[in-house]
Amino acid sequence: MKKTRTKRTITRYENGNIEKAEDDIATEEPFTIKLNEKEFATLVCTPEYIEDMVIGFLASEGVIRKFADIEDLWIQEKEGFIHVKTNYTNPFFEKFHSKRYITSCCGKSRQGFVFFNDARLSHHFKQVNVLLTYKDCFILMEEMQKSSAVFKQTGGVHNAALCTKDGVLLSRLDIGRHNALDKIYGYCLRHQISLKDKVIVFSGRISSEIITKVAKIGCEVVLSKSAPTELALELAEELGMTAVGFIRNNALNVYTRPDRIVEEIEI
Amino acid sequence: MKKTRTKRTITRYENGNIEKAEDDIATEEPFTIKLNEKEFATLVCTPEYIEDMVIGFLASEGVIRKFADIEDLWIQEKEGFIHVKTNYTNPFFEKFHSKRYITSCCGKSRQGFVFFNDARLSHHFKQVNVLLTYKDCFILMEEMQKSSAVFKQTGGVHNAALCTKDGVLLSRLDIGRHNALDKIYGYCLRHQISLKDKVIVFSGRISSEIITKVAKIGCEVVLSKSAPTELALELAEELGMTAVGFIRNNALNVYTRPDRIVEEIEI
Repeated sequence: MKKTRTKRTITRYENGNIEKAEDDIATEEPFTIKLNEKEFATLVCTPEYIEDMVIGFLASEGVIRKFADIEDLWIQEKEGFIHVKTNYTNPFFEKFHSKRYITSCCGKSRQGFVFFNDARLSHHFKQVNVLLTYKDCFILMEEMQKSSAVFKQTGGVHNAALCTKDGVLLSRLDIGRHNALDKIYGYCLRHQISLKDKVIVFSGRISSEIITKVAKIGCEVVLSKSAPTELALELAEELGMTAVGFIRNNALNVYTRPDRIVEEIEI
Repeated sequence: MKKTRTKRTITRYENGNIEKAEDDIATEEPFTIKLNEKEFATLVCTPEYIEDMVIGFLASEGVIRKFADIEDLWIQEKEGFIHVKTNYTNPFFEKFHSKRYITSCCGKSRQGFVFFNDARLSHHFKQVNVLLTYKDCFILMEEMQKSSAVFKQTGGVHNAALCTKDGVLLSRLDIGRHNALDKIYGYCLRHQISLKDKVIVFSGRISSEIITKVAKIGCEVVLSKSAPTELALELAEELGMTAVGFIRNNALNVYTRPDRIVEEIEI
């Protein structure tokens, strides 16, 4: 497996002292997906959990519907290829695929948006399947942050965690915001983990794309350390999702569907 | 002009107190570029300096070479269209355009990478046109941060500034990391501002794409508040660029070409 971080000699300045120092730097590697022998997309990512990322990516882009749609998947690590053979691909995909959608996150193309009206997104998270206290939000954010050693050492990656009310089930990091979520999604698809009662905890900002992805994954609550955008909140509202942001220093903001976050849960 | 931020009523929790509060939220808006009457790309961005962003985007993607390649550009704001008429487009572009390159930043398609071997990138920043002291780095970072009111109020945007050694010339923000740089690039192309002696100061992480974009813009120094990735530093080294990161709390790291950052400049 390729390394997720590497050592580098740098010049460090601190309060007037200048010295050569060893520093940990996050790596990024390009992988090109060959879908049914055709070059499909190249992902630049933190090189771990690549299979899960590709499964999650294809599912959240709407190319496949479920893990069983994949017949075979193998990695040519040295060459940087991931070969995917499917027995089903979305018939509408070719049509949508020709459009470029450059999103806010980094100003890049993404097909996801065209699937806004996708059946999986047209449903509304009406019910409250997940009920959290304010305290739960702080605890889950802290647990998520503790689970990421690479972040602490390199500062260069995003971290996402799949949680229940009681703690972190799965934590994934990536230099790409979406890749971390795709790695979680792919794992859940592969292991058929129900997502109805789960929560996504995320280190990055809540953009409209993050809301779309979390909705597709099937979670009704997203907790973030950072700020949301207005379009993200409009989407969250429309989908009935709870978005909580700026979880830091014993404070937080509940932006949408505040009925899932309470002071105390009566037993 | 559309608004860059909006008010929203939220539920705020702080040290045990829960109250309804008014909060400022950053907006994001989609704009679709129609290049010579063909739908080309949709950018989701903070809705200001849209013309500059589109010019910078087309130039850094390699579609146009200079501002004069654009014959006409007009915005249909309500419909969200930007019409661009060019008298030149890169003949290789159509070929490259068919490839999807999903990058680390958010795991999205971007064509930029295929232009790595572009003539503009094959040159090497050998000379030292910009010489900064450590103190300059801190002052420029502080000035850049002060220049962004929206960031302070919403926390949801990235900020980039074009600087000389003596201060900020131009500061742009966007919810998309690359959009902020494209807005700067477009402005410089439009006003034929020489970039040889300039510095880019950036709020976000230094990814390989940021290095590519700064190199295309023509700046040899990038200062960032955040961490770099290894691929970004390899690229910076190859191109002869100076990358400085983690500029905070009177400390910073010089990752590549440290000869441009000195303790004192002799007069």
